[in-house]
Amino acid sequence: MRVEELDSPTLTIDLDALDENLDRYQRYYTEHGIGLRPHIKTHKTLAIAAMQMAKGAIGLTCQKVGEAEVMVSGGLAVDILIPFNIIGKPKLERLMALATQTRLTVAADSAYTVRGLAEAAEAAGVTLSVIVEVECGMNRTGVQTPQEATELAKLIDKSKGLELRGFMGYPTPPASRPIIQETVALFDKAGLSREIVSGGSTRYAFEAHQIPELTEYRIGEYPTGGEGHLRAGRHTVEQCSLRVQATVISKPTADRVILDSGSKTMSASVFQAPHGPSMGYLVEYPDARFYSSSEEHGHVDVSACAKKPEIGERVQVLPVHPCPCVNEHDAIVAVRKGVVEAVWPVYARGKIR
Amino acid sequence: MRVEELDSPTLTIDLDALDENLDRYQRYYTEHGIGLRPHIKTHKTLAIAAMQMAKGAIGLTCQKVGEAEVMVSGGLAVDILIPFNIIGKPKLERLMALATQTRLTVAADSAYTVRGLAEAAEAAGVTLSVIVEVECGMNRTGVQTPQEATELAKLIDKSKGLELRGFMGYPTPPASRPIIQETVALFDKAGLSREIVSGGSTRYAFEAHQIPELTEYRIGEYPTGGEGHLRAGRHTVEQCSLRVQATVISKPTADRVILDSGSKTMSASVFQAPHGPSMGYLVEYPDARFYSSSEEHGHVDVSACAKKPEIGERVQVLPVHPCPCVNEHDAIVAVRKGVVEAVWPVYARGKIR
Repeated sequence: MRVEELDSPTLTIDLDALDENLDRYQRYYTEHGIGLRPHIKTHKTLAIAAMQMAKGAIGLTCQKVGEAEVMVSGGLAVDILIPFNIIGKPKLERLMALATQTRLTVAADSAYTVRGLAEAAEAAGVTLSVIVEVECGMNRTGVQTPQEATELAKLIDKSKGLELRGFMGYPTPPASRPIIQETVALFDKAGLSREIVSGGSTRYAFEAHQIPELTEYRIGEYPTGGEGHLRAGRHTVEQCSLRVQATVISKPTADRVILDSGSKTMSASVFQAPHGPSMGYLVEYPDARFYSSSEEHGHVDVSACAKKPEIGERVQVLPVHPCPCVNEHDAIVAVRKGVVEAVWPVYARGKIR
Repeated sequence: MRVEELDSPTLTIDLDALDENLDRYQRYYTEHGIGLRPHIKTHKTLAIAAMQMAKGAIGLTCQKVGEAEVMVSGGLAVDILIPFNIIGKPKLERLMALATQTRLTVAADSAYTVRGLAEAAEAAGVTLSVIVEVECGMNRTGVQTPQEATELAKLIDKSKGLELRGFMGYPTPPASRPIIQETVALFDKAGLSREIVSGGSTRYAFEAHQIPELTEYRIGEYPTGGEGHLRAGRHTVEQCSLRVQATVISKPTADRVILDSGSKTMSASVFQAPHGPSMGYLVEYPDARFYSSSEEHGHVDVSACAKKPEIGERVQVLPVHPCPCVNEHDAIVAVRKGVVEAVWPVYARGKIR
């Protein structure tokens, strides 16, 4: 079956582009002696996770316990990091069960999280690996200073049931190196383990070597690309492997076409493109502006296009943010040279717990 | 089981509030003699659709063929309107199968769509009901003028396999009445059927009677409310029945808390609140600002809160846009007076085709 024969909208991934992306990034990390720990939250599939491991990844990153459960139950009982504060009895019990099935490490940024992990580990008779998250510029989670990171590491180190393994940051641009260096120095001074110094973000993926203290790197979007990566020059159009096969279903004016792919297909994510807000990039119409969407309609301004798409025409759209886009779909259709080779269930879709 | 015992995040709906919303809106439409045709794209459940029918709805609105299939296969073989241009063989074949199982009407805004519908209906030996969509101010789909609507209606009227039933607009604020009046006049002059004159939008739900030409009204969000409806005064906090039960998992600074509910739980939709962009409304902390989110993290500024939430604390969050929020979930937990009464599968989730 050819890709054009798939009903629309359908999410597809180009296998040649995927393979090239996986190789290109793995090669960089191998060359620099940094462990690559892909974040599966982007693709949410067992198929791509298995490919990443086969290419040389040291393990996987999962953002929620449910994602890690999918990986382990799908045969990928590999070294897994969950860089998330896991809180509350139901999830802690599931976490301890997982820890008996695979090499598991979680992150913490508070004494509250650490105490919960320690109590659950002791109750389950499990030794759980923990790293500290330190603020590196995201202003999301993470203790605020290397000093606080060291204090929290000491608490982990002395907690029964827990094993301190190091620390992490997100994102870790080269400018964050002083924080990482200071944390390393303080950990060393206190005699704390830092076998894991974990950085992350596809945006800075090829700058990881500028922070030699890093032992591993977490990146999610490199297999797929997307409009942001395209416009930043990190992926060519060809390297943007993930695409929504969409259809023009209306052309109410000469300059506006409506796609059958709205926020329920693309996700509601918005990218600030040079021309303004964008909800997707039309491969065949680079001058088109996907400026807005409703749940089931994509609103596209084609005034700048020399040739304009017509009703019934099929177009390929790059998502602006691949992770939530994939989360809208139950399956990704894997295509090579325009021919369907496989249908991959998005097994880790919707794992919010 | 009490709602506090549910693991977080979980999407819940308060049954008393839901019931009151359904009654309140149905009463208005009954009093004004306008048919209420609820849009199931908001809740995507059989349970709420059945309640809407039992309260007196004349039928349902489904945005995609897949949603209509869910309703019909779930026992709701009622009068269904799909206000969407259905294009392409796979969907047209499914549409014709559906048309033999329920009273089905679809919308069209182009000769292309009409020709596809007519060919499929004739091939299937089915008579399909069609209405014309006319532009009423959304600048999405819809023919641009009442004149164009009349021309397209004539094409439908003379197409074998199709039955013209009238026309629709979206949204239909009172200011759109002149367009509707003109379309009615042109249809009447041409002797075209307009047994359906369909308006829509929860925003203008209680102004429908200001356009007496309307025979029916399509609204989706009235059962649930949401931050936009709350801030516009259309729903009180109590009437906002749909809530994400979330947990504070980090408090990196005194003024910032991080929830376990990001865009994968709330949807990536952003609402322009008086204080700036919002991704949710914290019921217990009305002065908090849910200003940003990652996939699994909700970023909340609590600097304006007199009392501030702590790590481990449970909070209830109103989504800014209930429809895509529900689409992120496999189930909605139905709660009455804090006690779980049912778990409703979101059967129509992810029906993008």
